[in-house]
Amino acid sequence: MVNGIERPLDLLNNSKGKEVLVQLKGDKQIVGTLLAFDIHINLVLDNIKEIEGGEVKRNLGLGFLRGDTIIFISPSSTSLKKD
Amino acid sequence: MVNGIERPLDLLNNSKGKEVLVQLKGDKQIVGTLLAFDIHINLVLDNIKEIEGGEVKRNLGLGFLRGDTIIFISPSSTSLKKD
Amino acid sequence: MVNGIERPLDLLNNSKGKEVLVQLKGDKQIVGTLLAFDIHINLVLDNIKEIEGGEVKRNLGLGFLRGDTIIFISPSSTSLKKD
Amino acid sequence: MVNGIERPLDLLNNSKGKEVLVQLKGDKQIVGTLLAFDIHINLVLDNIKEIEGGEVKRNLGLGFLRGDTIIFISPSSTSLKKD
Amino acid sequence: MVNGIERPLDLLNNSKGKEVLVQLKGDKQIVGTLLAFDIHINLVLDNIKEIEGGEVKRNLGLGFLRGDTIIFISPSSTSLKKD
Amino acid sequence: MVNGIERPLDLLNNSKGKEVLVQLKGDKQIVGTLLAFDIHINLVLDNIKEIEGGEVKRNLGLGFLRGDTIIFISPSSTSLKKD
Amino acid sequence: MVNGIERPLDLLNNSKGKEVLVQLKGDKQIVGTLLAFDIHINLVLDNIKEIEGGEVKRNLGLGFLRGDTIIFISPSSTSLKKD
Repeated sequence: MVNGIERPLDLLNNSKGKEVLVQLKGDKQIVGTLLAFDIHINLVLDNIKEIEGGEVKRNLGLGFLRGDTIIFISPSSTSLKKD
Repeated sequence: MVNGIERPLDLLNNSKGKEVLVQLKGDKQIVGTLLAFDIHINLVLDNIKEIEGGEVKRNLGLGFLRGDTIIFISPSSTSLKKD
Repeated sequence: MVNGIERPLDLLNNSKGKEVLVQLKGDKQIVGTLLAFDIHINLVLDNIKEIEGGEVKRNLGLGFLRGDTIIFISPSSTSLKKD
Repeated sequence: MVNGIERPLDLLNNSKGKEVLVQLKGDKQIVGTLLAFDIHINLVLDNIKEIEGGEVKRNLGLGFLRGDTIIFISPSSTSLKKD
Repeated sequence: MVNGIERPLDLLNNSKGKEVLVQLKGDKQIVGTLLAFDIHINLVLDNIKEIEGGEVKRNLGLGFLRGDTIIFISPSSTSLKKD
Repeated sequence: MVNGIERPLDLLNNSKGKEVLVQLKGDKQIVGTLLAFDIHINLVLDNIKEIEGGEVKRNLGLGFLRGDTIIFISPSSTSLKKD
Repeated sequence: MVNGIERPLDLLNNSKGKEVLVQLKGDKQIVGTLLAFDIHINLVLDNIKEIEGGEVKRNLGLGFLRGDTIIFISPSSTSLKKD
């Protein structure tokens, strides 16, 4: 069904250049295009949108997210397909 | 009764390809098929469902979960069998 | 009175195959049979019961508990004997 | 679209000498000119402004920010362009 | 006045086999006989009593306490002597 | 404009012997003369004043601050200049 | 003005055998005579007094304090001199 994911970071590698949904601690959500990540799960996203209650609260363009505030990261396409 | 579990990560290894229930800090619950994990307990799950009050709140497809927000991980079949 | 415990992990080693009470941060309690542990105090328990207000809230079967959410672990027999 | 960002710290490197928006834990926001950073995401900013509710609360000039209180860092120009 | 304590762990070493008061984060208190400790300040105590508002709330017998929930550890005799 | 700051700790080094404003987690503020620091951002300050609501709450003289409670450190002169 | 403090731990070394005020996370205060410390800022204090609202709440004699709950440590004499 899902191929080529042997280690968790493989999913992030497969998601480069794609839109991802990032759930942060404290009920914040970020949507953006994944440009880069490292082993601390620090991310660089482009076209960042802060989401609150299903609505876009703020457009932030390019940004760096520190890994330790992240709960989960999900490629948006898989989310949209099943919602 | 339960064989082949000498170290905690053995249970995660045995659960690959199976549905697991993941309890997160802050009373969030996630159900999904375990595809990959690492020593930080970072997980990749497929067919992710966020559960709230026993109901599916959101379908997220494929996703990466950071280990440090996880309280426990339980293979769903053992849960269903005994409830 | 208590023999053979020179280092804290010796108690966990002596408790393998026995029921233990695990107190988690945020006032959650878990009872289960200890199958495995590691130096991070990650645990695998079988026959897990979530306890709330002295009552079983949920049966979860087999599960993996992350060490960093644990406050204390106590073999149930020593608890029952003295209550 | 965005070139030369292979690792997350590349974005910080590209942002040296430019104004960045820093979102801190606990809903604090800081705007300032990025002078230096390290692998812990400790930052030195100049012309620091604390922002609250979209208004400047305090001017702090030069300052050192500890990395572990940071949620995200965004170059201001990309933010202004799309707001 | 107090001899033989050059490093903090010397106090724990001197307290082996004696009753200690352990103050945990979140206003929990534990009294028990110290059997073992390690450099993470993980403890094994026997005859554990949970104390709340100066009263014994629960007897837990033998138990393992994770070091990272501990605020301070005080040999009970020195406490009783001066109260 | 600001010279000689290539790494974040350079700012702390430049601030030795000068008054700094230290913002702590939990809305505490400390003002004092920076005497020493290390890579954990542990600080020693002299003439420490705890500030609350813009007023001096307590004078503490000399003191050691643990790095992990610090949000930011700002040389006071740059702050006063722009307030 | 203050001599011989090149690194933060020098202040703790100079304070051995003297009374110190220790501010803990969660608004707890401890006063006691510093007997020992280590690089984690774990402390052993004697004649410990818990302070609440400027009053002694509890006398605890000798005790071990874990470094990670400490905000600051101040030799009492410098505090008394300037209050």
